[in-house]
Amino acid sequence: MLIRRLAIIGVGLIGGSLARDLRQAGEVGEIVGCGRGRDNLERAVELGVIDRWSHDPGEAVAGADMVFLAVPLGAMEQTFAAMDGHLSDDVVITDGGSAKASVVAACEAGLGGLPPGFVPGHPIAGTENSGVEASFAGLYRNRRVILTPLPSSSAAALARVRAMWHACGAEVTEMSVAHHDEVLAATSHLPHMLAFSLVDTLARMKANDEIFRYAAGGFRDFTRIASSNPVMWRDICVANREALGEVMERYIQEMSELAETIRRGDGDRLLEIFSRAKAARDRYVDGLLDSPE
Amino acid sequence: MLIRRLAIIGVGLIGGSLARDLRQAGEVGEIVGCGRGRDNLERAVELGVIDRWSHDPGEAVAGADMVFLAVPLGAMEQTFAAMDGHLSDDVVITDGGSAKASVVAACEAGLGGLPPGFVPGHPIAGTENSGVEASFAGLYRNRRVILTPLPSSSAAALARVRAMWHACGAEVTEMSVAHHDEVLAATSHLPHMLAFSLVDTLARMKANDEIFRYAAGGFRDFTRIASSNPVMWRDICVANREALGEVMERYIQEMSELAETIRRGDGDRLLEIFSRAKAARDRYVDGLLDSPE
Repeated sequence: MLIRRLAIIGVGLIGGSLARDLRQAGEVGEIVGCGRGRDNLERAVELGVIDRWSHDPGEAVAGADMVFLAVPLGAMEQTFAAMDGHLSDDVVITDGGSAKASVVAACEAGLGGLPPGFVPGHPIAGTENSGVEASFAGLYRNRRVILTPLPSSSAAALARVRAMWHACGAEVTEMSVAHHDEVLAATSHLPHMLAFSLVDTLARMKANDEIFRYAAGGFRDFTRIASSNPVMWRDICVANREALGEVMERYIQEMSELAETIRRGDGDRLLEIFSRAKAARDRYVDGLLDSPE
Repeated sequence: MLIRRLAIIGVGLIGGSLARDLRQAGEVGEIVGCGRGRDNLERAVELGVIDRWSHDPGEAVAGADMVFLAVPLGAMEQTFAAMDGHLSDDVVITDGGSAKASVVAACEAGLGGLPPGFVPGHPIAGTENSGVEASFAGLYRNRRVILTPLPSSSAAALARVRAMWHACGAEVTEMSVAHHDEVLAATSHLPHMLAFSLVDTLARMKANDEIFRYAAGGFRDFTRIASSNPVMWRDICVANREALGEVMERYIQEMSELAETIRRGDGDRLLEIFSRAKAARDRYVDGLLDSPE
């Protein structure tokens, strides 16, 4: 058995699904949940996702050999601070945050340093639903998990976190904190900004009722991510503001050039841009995502 | 029977599906196809979509009481010109172009004026596939068709075009040419520009292989429309450059403000923007598009 006692701080879709997977794999003894909502925690016990719970992170991590943080990015620092002084010496700590530099800073501030057991991570998985009710075993199967081990991280802790995600069927890769934050800014955070901006631009136009009425099916797919949790996205934007700010700058530059090309009716140049984008999309996205992972 | 002889200029997904629907509804006598690709036209005859064909628009429209143009926007003017002098006196002409002002201009240039039988239109329907093989009966069922009758359009011609689309199960609405072009710029053309720009921005980044590898599922949905036909989109952008240029300007302004808000880490303002977008998306898009049409 990989984990004797697992503390899940934040028992929602991400934390709950990890608990279910490890339970199903027989790789965990006891699971202690922690969160603010009593109903959600009681439901988690009923569903068998956790064995017991506490509202207090310090209490929840006592005696745990693995701690998984799945709280909003904006709550990371206070969560680390609440755990301070209650962690076992040999504990391994990892998390599911979508921006890593801010989690590292939160750990440093909250625990007063970076313990060797801390290995930041990010499972690239999720659905639009939240709460423990939305969690399910298999969420991480064949999905990528990015670990961003720090100079302070011990090899043993890294190995344990890798093993935990492998037990969930995930494909684990490693990269630096800075590179993770750049890659995610481009592939996830930027597209969300585009969708939020698009819907907001349209909502602010006159006669927006009519405008939305004529939106075709592709528009619905395109803007689905604008229905994501606003609080979570506020936290992600603030946490990853540097990398995201940079890629948004680049994107705005590209859009401005495209608008100018359209305004002067330069068909040759438009065909070049659209053909290049289509080729990249067909080659990379379909090729890489459709391939057996 | 609504139509004695229908000429379909451009026998692809849009024109082919209209032919199939009208045939199935028993509302058409003979269907004459016109296009450049011989294989596609012969296949259309094999499939029973058309009865016979010609490469020459003038020949194809001879004796027709209804003409439907489904050629690329960039080919509209030459198609109208090729039809000139071959049209019956009582013919009704409509089309499926995604930008209407340019089709009206093409008709005026190609035919030397706007005949009373001309009623521009735009079925809001389609798939990512093209060619007569991709056409099917039912494409227009419960979909919206926007007609943009002109001051020159006769009431009789408008009634016949409405009846034709009703026979396909479509919901027909009317608006002005200018308003159509604004609404479509916002709901269809702009989202396509965002997707093309996003993919192109990422493709131009260093290490873009890796970047696409970590793109999550939402990214694939989001960028699907970047796989659309580049020639078609070049034509749409050139045809609708005024309305599209204006809405792109507005969007770039909104994105620039958002980037600035992110850079200064203004969480309250971000939450306000994302909440408004989520509310608009949930209210309009799901509400209006999920409702039985």
